[in-house]
Amino acid sequence: MIHVYTGNGKGKTTAAIGLAIRAIGRGKRVKIVQFMKKGEYGELIALKKLGIAVEQFGTFEFVDRDRVKREDIELAEKALKRAEELLLDCDLLILDEINVAIDYNLIALEDVLELMEKAKDKEIVLTGRYAREEIIEKADYVTEMREIKHPYRRGIEGREGIEF
Amino acid sequence: MIHVYTGNGKGKTTAAIGLAIRAIGRGKRVKIVQFMKKGEYGELIALKKLGIAVEQFGTFEFVDRDRVKREDIELAEKALKRAEELLLDCDLLILDEINVAIDYNLIALEDVLELMEKAKDKEIVLTGRYAREEIIEKADYVTEMREIKHPYRRGIEGREGIEF
Repeated sequence: MIHVYTGNGKGKTTAAIGLAIRAIGRGKRVKIVQFMKKGEYGELIALKKLGIAVEQFGTFEFVDRDRVKREDIELAEKALKRAEELLLDCDLLILDEINVAIDYNLIALEDVLELMEKAKDKEIVLTGRYAREEIIEKADYVTEMREIKHPYRRGIEGREGIEF
Repeated sequence: MIHVYTGNGKGKTTAAIGLAIRAIGRGKRVKIVQFMKKGEYGELIALKKLGIAVEQFGTFEFVDRDRVKREDIELAEKALKRAEELLLDCDLLILDEINVAIDYNLIALEDVLELMEKAKDKEIVLTGRYAREEIIEKADYVTEMREIKHPYRRGIEGREGIEF
């Protein structure tokens, strides 16, 4: 089945990671592909201990929505291709931040819908803000994480072990 | 700081577990107390491998909001007491489903607010639907998980490795 975590609130990637942990506990094969991300996150270290490699396709810079680089597109396309391969060999596939990659036009919506079609007998999780209507329509589970409160509004920056 | 995951959507407990995984990866000491829950969940198995014991305070039966038993109250009070002890000895404390325990009047809101006061220099996560206004006010991070779509609406029951 197809899961979507979207919205502007905290907890989308962490909910996907939590689902990975639950599935691993039940002996399922889990793969994680991260779009537009690169860098050390606390969860990668713990996931590695559980035998889960997270494949990252991003640069250390944030992608600028209005100034998308050739490299950003190439990496996102590579991630999508890799996702198709991994799908054959796992029970749960997490596509972290893929909704943003679609929204930024790094990858084509149609290609993602096609991948979702192939994933019907597996579990696939799509995270990120701005999930497209067509994605939501095709999904089985959709949760919107709504931000009610966040300390960055008081000027507090992301902290190690909490935000990354 | 104080985190709250509430709302009627999927992903509250899993987001808390994901946060635990991130914190563990960064070498933080994590403790998890589950209110009103008992039983094997996939995440418990994986967390155990990472050295995190989850302490459950519940029975195998669901708590009936209109017919709360003496045992339900005793267990919830025990959980809260245990949470206070654990707080002294950890960096991140997760109180899973505590919002429901308050809503069902198993524990007193005032006692939880007092615990939150003591937890100011730690990280503490409160999950569960029906988070009270006073809890939200005191929290630093609040995310509402809103259900947009869920397959149980089509009569599909919870599946191992996904819902538990």
